[in-house]
Amino acid sequence: MQKPTYEDYKRTMRKITDVNNAMAVLGWDKEVNLPSKGAMHRTQQVSTLAGIAHELFADEKFGDVLKFLNENNGLDDRQRRNVSLTLKDYNRNKKYSTEFVMKSSKVISEGYAAWLKAREANDFGLYREPLGKIVAIKREESEILGYKDHPYDALLDIYEPEAKTADIVTLFKDVRDKLVDFAKRIKAQPQVPHEFLGKFYAHQKQWDFGIDILKNMGYDFEAGRQDLSPHPFTTNFSPQDVRVTTRVDERDFGNMTWSCIHEGGHALYEQGLPVDEYGLPLGSSVSLGIHESQSRLWENNVGRSLPYWKAHYNKLQNAFPENLQGVPLEDFYKGINKVAPNLKRTEADELHYHFHVLIRFEIEKELLEGTLQVDDLDKYWNKKYKEYLGVDVPNDNQGILQDIHWAHGSIGYFPTYSLGSFYAVQFYNQAKSDIPGLEEQIQQGDNAQLLTWLRENIHRHGRYYSAEDLCQKVTGEKLNFDHFMKYAEEKYSFIYGL
Amino acid sequence: MQKPTYEDYKRTMRKITDVNNAMAVLGWDKEVNLPSKGAMHRTQQVSTLAGIAHELFADEKFGDVLKFLNENNGLDDRQRRNVSLTLKDYNRNKKYSTEFVMKSSKVISEGYAAWLKAREANDFGLYREPLGKIVAIKREESEILGYKDHPYDALLDIYEPEAKTADIVTLFKDVRDKLVDFAKRIKAQPQVPHEFLGKFYAHQKQWDFGIDILKNMGYDFEAGRQDLSPHPFTTNFSPQDVRVTTRVDERDFGNMTWSCIHEGGHALYEQGLPVDEYGLPLGSSVSLGIHESQSRLWENNVGRSLPYWKAHYNKLQNAFPENLQGVPLEDFYKGINKVAPNLKRTEADELHYHFHVLIRFEIEKELLEGTLQVDDLDKYWNKKYKEYLGVDVPNDNQGILQDIHWAHGSIGYFPTYSLGSFYAVQFYNQAKSDIPGLEEQIQQGDNAQLLTWLRENIHRHGRYYSAEDLCQKVTGEKLNFDHFMKYAEEKYSFIYGL
Repeated sequence: MQKPTYEDYKRTMRKITDVNNAMAVLGWDKEVNLPSKGAMHRTQQVSTLAGIAHELFADEKFGDVLKFLNENNGLDDRQRRNVSLTLKDYNRNKKYSTEFVMKSSKVISEGYAAWLKAREANDFGLYREPLGKIVAIKREESEILGYKDHPYDALLDIYEPEAKTADIVTLFKDVRDKLVDFAKRIKAQPQVPHEFLGKFYAHQKQWDFGIDILKNMGYDFEAGRQDLSPHPFTTNFSPQDVRVTTRVDERDFGNMTWSCIHEGGHALYEQGLPVDEYGLPLGSSVSLGIHESQSRLWENNVGRSLPYWKAHYNKLQNAFPENLQGVPLEDFYKGINKVAPNLKRTEADELHYHFHVLIRFEIEKELLEGTLQVDDLDKYWNKKYKEYLGVDVPNDNQGILQDIHWAHGSIGYFPTYSLGSFYAVQFYNQAKSDIPGLEEQIQQGDNAQLLTWLRENIHRHGRYYSAEDLCQKVTGEKLNFDHFMKYAEEKYSFIYGL
Repeated sequence: MQKPTYEDYKRTMRKITDVNNAMAVLGWDKEVNLPSKGAMHRTQQVSTLAGIAHELFADEKFGDVLKFLNENNGLDDRQRRNVSLTLKDYNRNKKYSTEFVMKSSKVISEGYAAWLKAREANDFGLYREPLGKIVAIKREESEILGYKDHPYDALLDIYEPEAKTADIVTLFKDVRDKLVDFAKRIKAQPQVPHEFLGKFYAHQKQWDFGIDILKNMGYDFEAGRQDLSPHPFTTNFSPQDVRVTTRVDERDFGNMTWSCIHEGGHALYEQGLPVDEYGLPLGSSVSLGIHESQSRLWENNVGRSLPYWKAHYNKLQNAFPENLQGVPLEDFYKGINKVAPNLKRTEADELHYHFHVLIRFEIEKELLEGTLQVDDLDKYWNKKYKEYLGVDVPNDNQGILQDIHWAHGSIGYFPTYSLGSFYAVQFYNQAKSDIPGLEEQIQQGDNAQLLTWLRENIHRHGRYYSAEDLCQKVTGEKLNFDHFMKYAEEKYSFIYGL
């Protein structure tokens, strides 16, 4: 038999990626276009492709190729990194027995069905036992995958490779110690003007404004498109076909605007990945946390900043004079940054958002440790909301039933949202220090140098660096919550007159 | 080893079909949505899926399942038909060696590239040699596949299973003997009024009218959708997701209208196929000819008839009063049925269309027989156009370079277009005789009984009957050109006052 070559490896990876990307097209089409009766066969078609991709990736012969190349000295740095990351995925994948995969998939699909029913009835009771089974299977999974320090590490690694529970604990200790107090100080101040956000903003004009926003960010419409869907998302079939969706609520202008900027940030990352590494780890994003850093940087650090709106507010006022003619820019800026404790994670402001994540992380961690059971989880949830956000949860749908993640079997995912925001600030600070006059450029509506900086420092590397190494390389230090805290204090002290 | 079961057969077929339908989604998306830069990876992704579907279908183990079941007596009628049709496809597929497939695919892709270049230069000379190679490879293919009477039979069978060249020859002898003369008699008459067709018809109003037309035909928008694309087509991912596209030319009202009705006819067939036979021959259409009979029946026999426009002309006049207020229904009816010799097949009227097909069929047959070479094919083409249509071909783009079919390696495809029109008339006559007052219903805008008849007599059977048997069963006789001729004489004698 001939010795396997790097080309063999690439060929198989690209075949698998083609199948995965075909699945992504079917998934995009499902959210954007699918006629109602088409759902049954579509689910089946996606599942067939998933099975094929799985078979290809789990093939022992492919494992032999990976192992041979990994021990071989003929590869360059980048090739070695591709092979070793793929081998890590391959080995993880191999740990799952067919029995476990089948049991897990049954538990999760029953859990998801129960969650849907529980939401319909607004009653956690219907979800309690199935959720308990999901937690049990995820605990089993973490044992199967193995870990050194904490069972949560094994699950966290799926979404945020190489991240450690202990570091997240440290990070969220800061959130608890510093951010909770700061939010309380804000709450004691008079609320900023924000009534204009809820006025009537006609669909077509919002849509046009959203397209302008994306173009201005540098999103390449020859390598993507925007459509409508119930829940905004970004998906990609190659760096040259990266699609975003948005939703338009005529009574909530902010919904469309910042979902465009947020998804646009994700999309710029995908459009900036190296095309010649298509199908390989170096052609992929680092982690969910780093991905989220790209969306949050644009959404919050740029898209909710005063310089950004100095560039765009006129156009917005001209599109909606009846709502905005009487609103000065500074009031607009304050209004779109309104901070207030709330019940739902997806509707949270950029400060309270992290309390929502913190609560979920603490719960997940304790569930994995076995120090918390699902029995009274609704009560535990409500208690935490009272403690960190000072709000009373009126019912389960607005409380513990609000997220789909656990019902989908995703435990270990939530922290990546906060990591994203924290990385975003740290990266953006570095960009400001590297690019003289960046905020003046943004104030002129010119984001080109910022995008070039992101391309150069983050996008083009794909998965060459881990999140931690990337952060170190780009900013000269590890992820450090102080950056976020300082950003929050400066920004919101001005907005709330602290 | 356990004996293979019908369930094993079904499972494999559905897996293959899922992959093929995923390819169809990618193909639809390419025509309707794809951003320009996405083309390269999309082509690769489709090709990967095609390779996977091919591997699955060509698997020897699957062949063993088919052979075992085909010789087994435990199957019912319908199951036997499924297995035997699949085995026929499997055996055909097995005849192609890997070398032949690679050679053929190279010749065709070079031929296609040459055709594109030749069209750009409007010069058959650039396509002559590559076309010669395509013809040679198709002759080789017909030898590989084998035939009893005529080499063309082997290729024809791919598109129109069980059809025979000899029957097509007989059919087209009638076309030549009867239709050519009739068309000449029409040509001698004064032309009907038709100027209104080329006036300005605004995009959005055309689109809305097209959607109404589809709804009125009974097209189920919960199991499909209409979009825009450069070339109208119908595609399906299951009987519950059958999509049509149309194009809108503001200076050619007819373009959108009859493409909607035509594609709608194709789509109604696909929506009417039995869902429980998904992925199996009985869940598929009989042949290209029968498929085209469904589109042509709606497009011409219904959609260009006086009763149909008695129902819909008012609505159209109201949408475009500036163009149609002064045009009486009878003038409108005559205008939309204007007959005149022309150069392009795709723009031909329903009579001259068959001369275009006749010319292509005669050429293909002689090329396969080896009695005609590609050397002077452009001259031969032009001579035939002069002979049958009385027109002078001014250049190659309007002549021999107009169709993509040969460049795609499709020889044996063209006759199915004419078969479709001839079957359509014969089916429609039967429907009129089976449904009392059918034309009165259509005149009221009510197509429900016609659709039920088509569902009952044609759609629901899938491939249970061959085209010939289906025609015999539904109309009591084989395909008979007299039906078309009689329809043409009656309709056009009225329109042209013969």
